[in-house]
Amino acid sequence: MDAAEFRRRGKEMVDYVADYLENIEKRLVYPDVEPGYLRSLIPTEAPLEPESYEDVIKDVERVIMPGITHWHSPYFFAYFSAASSYPAMLADMLCGALGCIGFSWGTASEATLMSLLAARCKAIRRVQATNSNYSESDVLGKLVAYTSEQAHSSVERAALIGGVMMKQVPADNSYAVRVDMLKKMMEEDKAAGLIPFYFCATLGTTPSCAFDRIVELGPLCNEENIWMHIDAAYAGSAFICPEFRPLLNGVEFADSFNFNPHKWLLVNFDCSAMWVKKRTDIIGAFKMEPLYLKHENQESGRSITFTHTHWQIPLGRRFRSLKLWFVFRLYGLQGLQAHIRKQVALAKVFESLVRADKRFEICAEVIMGLVCFRLKGSNELNQNLLKRITDSREIHLVPCQLSGRFVLRFAICARTTESSHIQQAWRHITQLTFELLQEPSH
Amino acid sequence: MDAAEFRRRGKEMVDYVADYLENIEKRLVYPDVEPGYLRSLIPTEAPLEPESYEDVIKDVERVIMPGITHWHSPYFFAYFSAASSYPAMLADMLCGALGCIGFSWGTASEATLMSLLAARCKAIRRVQATNSNYSESDVLGKLVAYTSEQAHSSVERAALIGGVMMKQVPADNSYAVRVDMLKKMMEEDKAAGLIPFYFCATLGTTPSCAFDRIVELGPLCNEENIWMHIDAAYAGSAFICPEFRPLLNGVEFADSFNFNPHKWLLVNFDCSAMWVKKRTDIIGAFKMEPLYLKHENQESGRSITFTHTHWQIPLGRRFRSLKLWFVFRLYGLQGLQAHIRKQVALAKVFESLVRADKRFEICAEVIMGLVCFRLKGSNELNQNLLKRITDSREIHLVPCQLSGRFVLRFAICARTTESSHIQQAWRHITQLTFELLQEPSH
Repeated sequence: MDAAEFRRRGKEMVDYVADYLENIEKRLVYPDVEPGYLRSLIPTEAPLEPESYEDVIKDVERVIMPGITHWHSPYFFAYFSAASSYPAMLADMLCGALGCIGFSWGTASEATLMSLLAARCKAIRRVQATNSNYSESDVLGKLVAYTSEQAHSSVERAALIGGVMMKQVPADNSYAVRVDMLKKMMEEDKAAGLIPFYFCATLGTTPSCAFDRIVELGPLCNEENIWMHIDAAYAGSAFICPEFRPLLNGVEFADSFNFNPHKWLLVNFDCSAMWVKKRTDIIGAFKMEPLYLKHENQESGRSITFTHTHWQIPLGRRFRSLKLWFVFRLYGLQGLQAHIRKQVALAKVFESLVRADKRFEICAEVIMGLVCFRLKGSNELNQNLLKRITDSREIHLVPCQLSGRFVLRFAICARTTESSHIQQAWRHITQLTFELLQEPSH
Repeated sequence: MDAAEFRRRGKEMVDYVADYLENIEKRLVYPDVEPGYLRSLIPTEAPLEPESYEDVIKDVERVIMPGITHWHSPYFFAYFSAASSYPAMLADMLCGALGCIGFSWGTASEATLMSLLAARCKAIRRVQATNSNYSESDVLGKLVAYTSEQAHSSVERAALIGGVMMKQVPADNSYAVRVDMLKKMMEEDKAAGLIPFYFCATLGTTPSCAFDRIVELGPLCNEENIWMHIDAAYAGSAFICPEFRPLLNGVEFADSFNFNPHKWLLVNFDCSAMWVKKRTDIIGAFKMEPLYLKHENQESGRSITFTHTHWQIPLGRRFRSLKLWFVFRLYGLQGLQAHIRKQVALAKVFESLVRADKRFEICAEVIMGLVCFRLKGSNELNQNLLKRITDSREIHLVPCQLSGRFVLRFAICARTTESSHIQQAWRHITQLTFELLQEPSH
């Protein structure tokens, strides 16, 4: 394919993309195929000679689309939102053409891991400075990290990778971690000879979008020399709205902070932003300087060296900041705020619909774009309802567990979700509920 | 920006991308700006109201392009190649529109880390099974990993992250690791009470594209229960050509293997492929199963669960396999082989030019698309030559160190590099050499 053909095919692809997104709600949001469906549709080997572009693009609908979960359908209410916007797509086209290697934008899971590793390195050095007879593995065996029982699974996995113990702090009845509980656990652990070194707070937990009380947790962590990382993967985008800023109070105590613009800030996947209070903490943990990566300005002090090896796990990175730049400029702060506010308002619409139906209950305070709800009754009843929703494939949502109860998570995700889609989703849920409750077994 | 505007702007962007790539060699390959140049060109805050698209696109040339290193210029000979092709760009446009979350394609650095962590987990379990009084940190403190002194810095960093000791195995005079040296080191370590558990072999090292002798190293690793990972980040793509397959002999002894299609297989950055012999080894090390990530077919046995949490560090991933699919089909195996062979031939052209000039020497066997060369004489002389090359900005290459000598790496990178660019690059290098040697100090 030469540049001339790319000009033609690229313009066709632009139309294909626009057609796809303009008509996305006509597609089943959740694919109706069995795992392995792809195997019989594709050859076992790459073709020897080039195929025609027409054949490939024909196969997009025949082979690929049947297996796609349409994350940007207005009937997608699962997980959290994944951002999508035309400006970000344009920037990604340019990014692909430039194909240059950028710096440290990771994902929230990676940010958590990096902060934990930096904290581990700092703690080991501190302990060894006063106990010179301790080996690194002696210290490792005593280190304890903490996070909420409601934290994302990637936090626990970071500890697994880092080879340190991690303890889950019980949350209060709003699913937030409070200082008393963390303090109590840390004191017990210190009394048992362990060394608390890291706490990962969450602003906007995955199950229920709860906010740990960082304004009271932060001072404790600072006093005790505990690294406080804040995972605000989803909710972090909302802090561009002044009315949500109070939830960020206490951020000044944090050692590191992360959120994913690719979740809620209209920047297409993937793009995650991490801040570190003292950059030497991160660099010190990972510094490696082979000759082929040295460059002239590194030690000049004029520039912050974003040499990727020191700030993240992969060596290379796409030029992701280009997407942020396109999106910030083409939406403006007001446009982005309007997007956040609209989605929060849509969640309130759904909450009202649930509250008006006596068969249902709301399971957690609705603060952002997530509504946790369930049928009053057994977990089994709610599992059955979710199975019907999933089987019908008209809307897509996923469950969570709160206080031992099976709960449905209704997350406002797509940029194109409107009030009409919420109404339609609720009609669909209540229709399936009606059918479920008609069955003799209930 | 609505769909109608995206159609218009997208088509303009397609032309911009094609224009950029058709005229890329007219741009200075290496940017002539100082670190921090960007600060005065961009505002300190995101705009309150949306800006016009015209303003943004005007700023691409005014603000962004002056700072870009043009990785796809035919005068870019630094690091290794970064793939770029029109089919992969088309696929990325579609990938951005779908915006769905894919599975486990990482980068080579991440693949190395994942293999090391899986090996660590396996080793700890094995040791604890026979020594039940050992704690996890007792075992960690005894584990030893090995890699070539020529291996990529990310290998050493994987050990740093994993909290285990890593030893560098001296290479032979072709810069490859041989079995005798590894065996000797392992035996000394075992005698000292340590536990060897992991060896990272490299096929195509970064400094000189050397190939560790896996056909003799593999059996030793298998006998000693050492996980052998193969990092073939760059050279791995060449194994689609039968004539390079002998270099892969011994791969059957490996526990894991990785290469980056984004380096040499025309798949735009980023796309890295990893194989694991026993997938339970990787999954076992990272399995986490929160309710919001459970899905129905997970335990059915009909599908391999690529749930991202178990196979890689980030939770989410772009739909990168789409790029592979477009590229395989639109180039065909023959087209991809032709690309590899052409670049290897271009390296031979450059090698001949160097060999014909008595002032220069070739520093390592030229096997793939990389030529390591230097001026006969001091390291300082070669550092001066590289400084002149870098300052002139007409071609871009980076150095390496081989046997304590400062060496210039000339890597065939861009898809569009032709013999004429090689000739021009050599004329440029010899002109700068002439000027350098004219100076009284030499």
